[in-house]
Amino acid sequence: MSVPLFLDCDTGIDDAMAIGWLVATPGVDLVGVSTVSGNLDAAGGARNTLDLLALLGRPEVPVSVGAHDFLDHPYSGGAPEVHGVNGIGEVELPRSPAAPTGTSGAQAIVDAARAHPGELHLLAIGPFTNVALALDLEPRLPELVGRFTVMGGAAMAPGNVSAVAEANVANDPLAAHRVFTAGFDLTMVGLDVTMEHVFEESHRQALLAVGTPGAVAIARMLGHYFGFYAQRYGRPCAVLHDPLAAAVATGDVDLALAPTVPVVVDHTDGPGRGQTVVDLRDRYQGYPRTYENGTRVALEVPGDFAGQLLARLSTL
Amino acid sequence: MSVPLFLDCDTGIDDAMAIGWLVATPGVDLVGVSTVSGNLDAAGGARNTLDLLALLGRPEVPVSVGAHDFLDHPYSGGAPEVHGVNGIGEVELPRSPAAPTGTSGAQAIVDAARAHPGELHLLAIGPFTNVALALDLEPRLPELVGRFTVMGGAAMAPGNVSAVAEANVANDPLAAHRVFTAGFDLTMVGLDVTMEHVFEESHRQALLAVGTPGAVAIARMLGHYFGFYAQRYGRPCAVLHDPLAAAVATGDVDLALAPTVPVVVDHTDGPGRGQTVVDLRDRYQGYPRTYENGTRVALEVPGDFAGQLLARLSTL
Repeated sequence: MSVPLFLDCDTGIDDAMAIGWLVATPGVDLVGVSTVSGNLDAAGGARNTLDLLALLGRPEVPVSVGAHDFLDHPYSGGAPEVHGVNGIGEVELPRSPAAPTGTSGAQAIVDAARAHPGELHLLAIGPFTNVALALDLEPRLPELVGRFTVMGGAAMAPGNVSAVAEANVANDPLAAHRVFTAGFDLTMVGLDVTMEHVFEESHRQALLAVGTPGAVAIARMLGHYFGFYAQRYGRPCAVLHDPLAAAVATGDVDLALAPTVPVVVDHTDGPGRGQTVVDLRDRYQGYPRTYENGTRVALEVPGDFAGQLLARLSTL
Repeated sequence: MSVPLFLDCDTGIDDAMAIGWLVATPGVDLVGVSTVSGNLDAAGGARNTLDLLALLGRPEVPVSVGAHDFLDHPYSGGAPEVHGVNGIGEVELPRSPAAPTGTSGAQAIVDAARAHPGELHLLAIGPFTNVALALDLEPRLPELVGRFTVMGGAAMAPGNVSAVAEANVANDPLAAHRVFTAGFDLTMVGLDVTMEHVFEESHRQALLAVGTPGAVAIARMLGHYFGFYAQRYGRPCAVLHDPLAAAVATGDVDLALAPTVPVVVDHTDGPGRGQTVVDLRDRYQGYPRTYENGTRVALEVPGDFAGQLLARLSTL
């Protein structure tokens, strides 16, 4: 039983790890990818995605370039300090002969949902601009998409681009707000859980030692990413944002605590801009209620996900 | 060595417990009280405060009526469902012959700070309107006040009047923002710690059994308060917001984790209105930095504070 999965991303080093996870996971039918500006611009993200997919033996997966600018403001330059100028830590991948589809990212999402009504699993690990635009093209998208998993936001954990805002949501808060309140069967994999799972230098060395082109390319990208996190953690390592969301999407990790609660996004210009405002007031009673149109918010993912990720990427 | 302490409050059942704590604590010189609208209106809060102080043998403490309305919007009715229509759970205290001073709450705060420059301990357990107005009257207030402890806000814990807003801050977010950014030596005792300390029915019965007028009055007020919390916790009990802040002010509890970090208050009209935006991004490195003009944010108060509170109120 394979599950049709569509990926929206901004590749990006941890996006590359997520793509590696999806390619290496049995039962995942990666039907398409759209890119959005975030870690770098949407066109650059598409180039990285095409090249990585070819390196991983999947050159046929269609990749569509999505939104360059955000809903209410322009793209302004990505995160080269985290992901490098080319988005993948200055690693030069062999150029795939494949080109992006001529379809927009938003249209590609709609097309995939219509092709697999009620069955498609949508995974979004960049800003939510493409999905918001897809909602404009197809208001029935929340019913057409079977399940939707996002990397983004923070419930109780601090933000990573402001005191309370996570980068994917902060890049386009209005898009995120529309997506979180559209009625999807939505799971939020935010900083509450992603910050708890860390790839260490020992993992990276083990991945390098695998020796296959895909494993080595990802391990080399991580060298750059580790340099950024070393400033934050005091040691070279990397937080596993996007691959953890991919693993939640493929059902490979245990959501030990993930209440379904109301989530809205602050898209004001105030100090909370870009915050996922997650209503956890039921915590003192153990979350007895499931809210209609709520979001399943991952709060605890126990287990050794870094080890699991290393094992899976080692099969690439 | 007695410490001059000025209390700003909205009495209120847990305010009454805080007043009990202050009266019962050796070394506290309660030099004055101002009231503000919050749990009930400022004038009603002053009446409750005068009557309670008289019952506790302190009829001479000056009580000033402070702001009825908030900085940018009017008072709109308090929290009778939590505190009762009269603010103290419909308990009828003997009427004190003392009347409020003719001074405004804000002026009383300024006067107390000027009378004890650099030594006054200010404790605010209601909305922060009076303190914000006092800053207008005396811009040097942050230097004149020695230490300032507030009950209010939430860093990681959910809010109690919205997903992210605590009631004292939410009542007047603009005032709170001015107070948090004014440069006080400020300690925030918010929902992160107050929600962890609970008075149970056994504590209330023990307090009733003390039999003195003060202990009995507070225990009877708690009957009403317990009824409100029973809906939230599934059992009659009460969270110890204001008395915990009083105990932090008097130095009687251990702030096991209380980093000094930037805090601003969301006073937009967005979904984060009334949130204390606390920057905890240093948590992953164990809070190595102390920020200039930061706020000491109480995140962990271990120990049996409910038992400590019962013991102290039993001396009333």
